[in-house]
Parts: sequence; structure tokens; C-alpha cells
Amino acid sequence: MPGNQPTRMIWRDITLFDGIATLPAPMGVIVAGERIERVAPMSELDPETLAGCTVMASGGVMTPGLVDCHTHLVFGGSRADEFEQRLEGVSYEEIARRGGGILSTVAATREASEETLFAAARPRLQALIDEGVTTVEIKSGYGLSVADELKMLRVARRLGEALPVRVVTTLLGAHALPPEFKDDSDGYIRLVCEEMIPAAAAEGLADAVDVFCETIAFSVAQCERVFEAAEAHGLPIKAHAEQLSNLGGSAMAARHGALSADHIEYLDEAGVAALREAGSVAVLLPGAFHTLRETKLPPIAALREAGVPMAVATDANPGSSPIFDPTLMLNFACTLFRLTPQEALAGMTAHGARALGLDDRRFSDLALGRIEAGAPADLCLWNVDTPAALAYAVQPGRLRQRVFNGEVTHD
Amino acid sequence: MPGNQPTRMIWRDITLFDGIATLPAPMGVIVAGERIERVAPMSELDPETLAGCTVMASGGVMTPGLVDCHTHLVFGGSRADEFEQRLEGVSYEEIARRGGGILSTVAATREASEETLFAAARPRLQALIDEGVTTVEIKSGYGLSVADELKMLRVARRLGEALPVRVVTTLLGAHALPPEFKDDSDGYIRLVCEEMIPAAAAEGLADAVDVFCETIAFSVAQCERVFEAAEAHGLPIKAHAEQLSNLGGSAMAARHGALSADHIEYLDEAGVAALREAGSVAVLLPGAFHTLRETKLPPIAALREAGVPMAVATDANPGSSPIFDPTLMLNFACTLFRLTPQEALAGMTAHGARALGLDDRRFSDLALGRIEAGAPADLCLWNVDTPAALAYAVQPGRLRQRVFNGEVTHD
Ligand SMILES: [Zn+2]
Ligand SMILES: [Zn+2]
Repeated sequence: MPGNQPTRMIWRDITLFDGIATLPAPMGVIVAGERIERVAPMSELDPETLAGCTVMASGGVMTPGLVDCHTHLVFGGSRADEFEQRLEGVSYEEIARRGGGILSTVAATREASEETLFAAARPRLQALIDEGVTTVEIKSGYGLSVADELKMLRVARRLGEALPVRVVTTLLGAHALPPEFKDDSDGYIRLVCEEMIPAAAAEGLADAVDVFCETIAFSVAQCERVFEAAEAHGLPIKAHAEQLSNLGGSAMAARHGALSADHIEYLDEAGVAALREAGSVAVLLPGAFHTLRETKLPPIAALREAGVPMAVATDANPGSSPIFDPTLMLNFACTLFRLTPQEALAGMTAHGARALGLDDRRFSDLALGRIEAGAPADLCLWNVDTPAALAYAVQPGRLRQRVFNGEVTHD
Repeated sequence: MPGNQPTRMIWRDITLFDGIATLPAPMGVIVAGERIERVAPMSELDPETLAGCTVMASGGVMTPGLVDCHTHLVFGGSRADEFEQRLEGVSYEEIARRGGGILSTVAATREASEETLFAAARPRLQALIDEGVTTVEIKSGYGLSVADELKMLRVARRLGEALPVRVVTTLLGAHALPPEFKDDSDGYIRLVCEEMIPAAAAEGLADAVDVFCETIAFSVAQCERVFEAAEAHGLPIKAHAEQLSNLGGSAMAARHGALSADHIEYLDEAGVAALREAGSVAVLLPGAFHTLRETKLPPIAALREAGVPMAVATDANPGSSPIFDPTLMLNFACTLFRLTPQEALAGMTAHGARALGLDDRRFSDLALGRIEAGAPADLCLWNVDTPAALAYAVQPGRLRQRVFNGEVTHD
């Protein structure tokens, strides 16, 4: 065999969800090196082609590696005690008096070393990997100082080097107001714009910039200042918006060409139209909806009708979505938000990738979240009968093989 | 070492949830053979005791092996297509016309061989085992003929022989009306009472008898006839009751000394009092609540005040709860039903065992679901900081060691 020839692998007779739609069995997928070489019905693959391939599996359901496009995986401490106290009847006010809530995570994150944050996040990321994730976005946002935000982003980058997963980082300096800026939110936004974003950009630590646009966080005008600073440094933007109220943050973000608007339970018609015009992705986070026991549903029918791509993500975080289970989100997207199983799967593959600018149309030619010739070979083979079964049944451990960048990591 | 001396194992410096309450670290648990020998603070264990033990782990959180006291794990076919169709807008009527719903599971179960049913159920049971289950109840109820109900129970028994888990079987002949009795529900109940129960009892295939008491299933009077037949054969009873309406099925079951009343979203004050007086367990099934998007909560505060033990189970089944994840139920019990984490944990340990008659007070001296001297050594060691964290975070894969009847099965 010529030395430079990569090993060619074939998955035979499979049912394929390609990131957008299901291609019924018997399909074949051939991988050469790090890339997908060919996707075709078995009948179109001639004996010569097949002869040069190692058969990795026959049968099963294949999807792209899952893309979890919205997480806060890196954080210090735990909020399990707070969860318990709340259920034992302690009031929110009392918990806040005891130092609970997001600021307790900020304090624990500031106190933690990079090593500690890395060790705590690693099993959480491993749990996502073991359920099929090959690309994950990780936000900062619990440091809230230049040094601590950069520390979080460095940990996120290190996780991507240590584990077989693509990590995309997002600077979320404008997540919450740190205690030292208690009565000066404009002053904190200045710090984010004038020091944090330039520092993260200079060190190449952030792939995008995010904000929390909400009455309990930052105003539309403040978030717009953050976006302008991001643009000045060539960083794409996205927003937590319309989660608890309708401030118009999504529409403003869309005007700035945001990759995505995330949460969006309170998004109105104008907001939907703005996302459509900007080509932004609507990122749905049913884990937070579940944990916060929300009742206001995002405008799924309007998004669907407008053709706005819908992504689905875990929002994995210690407060409002301590959920480190991507396939559960497929079920939640269907059961809670009434997505179809195909929409939910597209939400954690093709549309998740697009929410990160990792589809082939925007900032890269990677075509992640798709199974097509030329795309990186990030693949999952599942022990299920149909793609829909991944969303229908909640059952950890159905991942049969996982391929990351052409290498089989689970078998 | 004397040949008959069993190996003694110790778990050191652990935090212990003993089935009812948390005993803070540093605790020690010693296992000799199949039984727990000693549970004590480390300070009370003298060097001589420690010297004779193999240290299995230091630190971590230990709970009893989880008890999933209500499942329908054995069934033929899949309802993933139906799930997908419903989300794509096909009406319930149309799905029923296409042969969907519970009767599609009945048809597939009748058609399936024991071997097929066993092979299909095995990975579902393995998923429960991999998340900590050591005792599982499995109901019949999709056969609806004498032969097919016994077939299901035989498969359940075989699962318990093949895998490291205690299987408790329940005959649920009165689950739904089979098509051949379409206009003769009393005739079907006669079949259940006069043929099915005697046959299951004669073959020793059923550990208990269950009914579905509901407007869409069987009346209180019909269920009472089933209970009388069960009593005549010395079988304990339990009921699916008050799930969709308040018929008084739980109170009737309690009058017959039921082990448990299950679902009970619509249970009223009189029903709570009846359970209390009978010493019956209230089995909460938040997976069905989630899947059916119910809004009526079970009367948790009243049950708590009355001191009725609350169990929590998956209700794993192909229609209303396709959820094969016991630790997710801990989260659901807290988030959806507002149980405390300790209550949820007791619900899947001590109270789950009691719902099966496997606590030490009723039909056996097994004391399952507890960590105490003399109890069978069914134990889970978890990679979490506190017992509450098991309910707080949804994260498959945190099981570090699992001990079944004194044997370490996961490490
Ligand atoms: Zn978020
Ligand atoms: Zn049931």
C-alpha cells in the first residue's frame, strides 16, 4: 500500500440523518483520512470502491457528530446545595443573602485555578462526548474581570486540546454585573469593550462575543456597545435574548449580523422577521425552560414558517440548566417545544454548526454538522431503529461508534 | 485465611445516603459476602477491623442500589414512528386508525417470540443498570391473553437471571381491553380473574398483581374483582390510579392493602388518608407527567404531611414514558414535582423497595433500598459531591462503582 494513502473506512447499509434530512437505508458512507469521501446508496458503490474499504459497521443509524452550540461548561463550585435549599423551602432572597445565585458561581470561579476549573469541567465534557457531541461551544461569563474571563477561555481551549472534541469559545463578559461594579453597569460595559474584548482578541482566545440582554442583566443599548467593540476586533456576535421578557435584543443583534439569538421564548413577530433577514439562527434551550419551569414557549411555528434555522443546545450551566446530556435535549425539544424529531436533530447538527459559524456558508468551509463529501468526518453511529428514536426515547448509552475527525473514538 | 471466610470489603471516608437520610462523611461501609456487615463513622472502626478489609474506594457518595419500582420494560415494537407522526401534525384519531397507540404495542408483543422480547428489553434494562438500578419491577400488560401475559412474565424472569439485577414481576392483565373483547370488558376481567391470575400464580411467574383503574381502562368495581382474585392466590396488589381523573381507585386499592397506588395526580384528601391508613406507598411517575405534558401535580404536600411514603420510578414504557434513565427521574421528581433531593432519593431506594414489598416490614426480610447492617449489599458509589447533586445535575455516567448482592459489577 502506498504510504501516503489514508485508510478508507466504510459504514454499510445504514440509515442516514445527514444533518438536514433522513436518507433511508441502505446507504454507505466512506471516510478517507479526516474527511468524508463519499455518501451514496449502497447500490451506487461498485465492488472496486467497496474492496478498498474497511467495513466499520453494517446497519444502524448514523448522524453527524452532535453540535452543542451553547454551553457554560467551565465554572467553579456547585449549586447543588442551593438547588436543595430552594426545594426545602428557603426563599430566593434568603439564598441570595447567603451568597447564592450566579454570584456564588462567580466567586467560586474567580477563586479556582485553571487546573481546578479544567478538572471540574472535564467529566462534564466527557459526558457530552459519550452521548455523541463532537463540537461544543463553551462560554466564559463567570469571571467578570479581564483576568478571570481570559482564564475561563484558556480552560475551554485546553479542554479542546485534551479531549477528542472541537471546542469553540465565546467571550461572555456581559453575562452579569460583578459586585465591584454594583452601581455602575455602564462602567462595567466600558471594561468589557475597552479591555476584555481587546485582550481576548489579542490572545486569540475568543471565537465570538456574547451578551445577556435582559432586564436582570444588560440593556439593549449596552449590548449594542459590546457588539460594536466585537466588530471592531473582527469577532462574530450572538446574544442571550428574549428569555424572560421582550426587550428587542434579538432584533438588535440581528441588525449586527448575529450568528444567533438564544433562548427567545419572548421573541415577537418583528424579532422573527429580523432573524430571518439577517440569516441568524434561533437557538432553543429547553433545558433552561425545564429547570426554570417556564410556561412561555418560543415562537416555533413562526420561526418554522419564516424559515429561520432552529438550533437546540444544552445550555449546560450550574444554575438554570445543570444538564449535561445532549440526547435528552432532542427529547425536550420535541416534548416541550413540539419540534419534530428531524428538526431537533438538525438543531443539534447542521443548525447547531451554523449557530457557531461552522457551516460552510459563513466563516469557514468546514461544513460541520453535515454528512456530505468533503466535510470533516465527525460521525455517530447509534443503536436505534430510526433517527426519530433518538428524540423519542431517553436512554443513555445508545452511542455505538463515534468518529471524530476521521478517528474512531468510541466502539 | 479460612476457606469459608468471605472477602470483606470496605468503602472508606464516604458520604452516605442510607435510603432515608444522609450521613455525612467520613463514613465507612463494610461488606462481607452478600450482605452489609457494618455501617459506621470511620472513627468507630478500629484498626483491627480495618486491617481485615480490602479498600474498594475512599471518598465519594454512596447510595443504596436504585430501585425502579414501576416499569413496563418488556414490549414488542417501537412507537418512535408514532411519536414522530404526532409531532408532524397527524391527529390521535388518524394514528389510531393507522393502528397506533397501546394496541400497536399489544399486536407487536403478541407477535414477538420470547427471544425477540428478551433481546429488545435487554439493552433497556442494561441502561437502567448502568445508571445504578439494582432492583427493577417489570410488568406484563401488552399480551392481554393468558399465553401472551405469561410470555411477558417469563421474559422478565429471564432478564433477572441474565443480568446482575433483581427483577420483581407484576401481572398487569387488566392494563387495556384487547380487541377480541372490544364490547365485553366484564368478560375480559373474568378471563383475568379466572384464568390469567391462577395460571401466573401456578407457575410462580407473578410477584404481584396490578390494574389500570381509569375511565379509559377499567372501573373501580372491575379492578376490585381483580384484587379479590389476586388475594385468593396470595398475591399482593397495586394499582395505576388517579392518573387522568379521580375515580377513587387508590382508596379502593388501599382498602385491599395495596403495596402502592401509582401516578395519583388526581388523588384527593380522602385518597391520601386511605393510603396513610393502609401503609401503602404513593408511587410518583414524573416521566409520564413530562411525556404527556400534564399540568395537574400529584398532592405532594398532603402526602408529605400525612407521612405517606413516596416512591419515584421511571414508568419506562413505549407510549407515555419512553424514558430509560433512573437518575433523570431524581431530577424530574424535584424539578417537576418539587420533592426535595432527599425525598427523591428515598423514592428510588427505601420507598421504592417498600412499594414492592421488599422493605423489611412486609413480605420479606430483605431490607432492600437501605444501607444497614444485615441488608443485601446492593450499593452505588457516585462521582458527585453530595447526594443532592444526583438530583440537581442531569449527567449520565456518574456511577463509579456498583455492587450487586456483594459483587462489584461496575468499576
Ligand atoms: Zn446561556
Ligand atoms: Zn405504568
